[in-house]
Amino acid sequence: ASRPRRRMVAVRAEAINPDIRKTEEKVVDSVLLPEISKPVTAYCRCWRSGTFPLCDGSHLKHNKATGDNVGPLLLKQK
Amino acid sequence: ASRPRRRMVAVRAEAINPDIRKTEEKVVDSVLLPEISKPVTAYCRCWRSGTFPLCDGSHLKHNKATGDNVGPLLLKQK
Ligand code: FES
Ligand code: FES
Repeated sequence: ASRPRRRMVAVRAEAINPDIRKTEEKVVDSVLLPEISKPVTAYCRCWRSGTFPLCDGSHLKHNKATGDNVGPLLLKQK
Repeated sequence: ASRPRRRMVAVRAEAINPDIRKTEEKVVDSVLLPEISKPVTAYCRCWRSGTFPLCDGSHLKHNKATGDNVGPLLLKQK
């Protein structure tokens, strides 16, 4: 008798941060607003930036590779 | 002859945003800094918040379920 085939089920409960500061229990960053001087500053929410916590545009590659639609948080002076 | 066994390889190129504003090509949010009045405001980076773009603490459940270590961006007045 053959073994029953194992059904594959996609489990989506996965980590979203592959690499950033994995020795930290929780990666929290603080921005002191009086120190923000540029008109617009982009902060990463895709966990793929080489300049995390800042956005370096890496969300574009992630979105293209996965069909995702994530993007940064923009801090604006006005 | 038996079929060769298929090797399973975990593919990590997956979307990290399961539900938020999926009709938008890219989810970008803007914060006007002069309108931030609270001493500390937490913005979500886990894509699990019920009050996105704000953090509602849902990163805790996500981290526990997946072993991840993500957390919010804190905007502080000082
Ligand atoms: S690089 Fe992560 S949101 Fe832009
Ligand atoms: S709920 Fe997403 S970072 Fe807190």
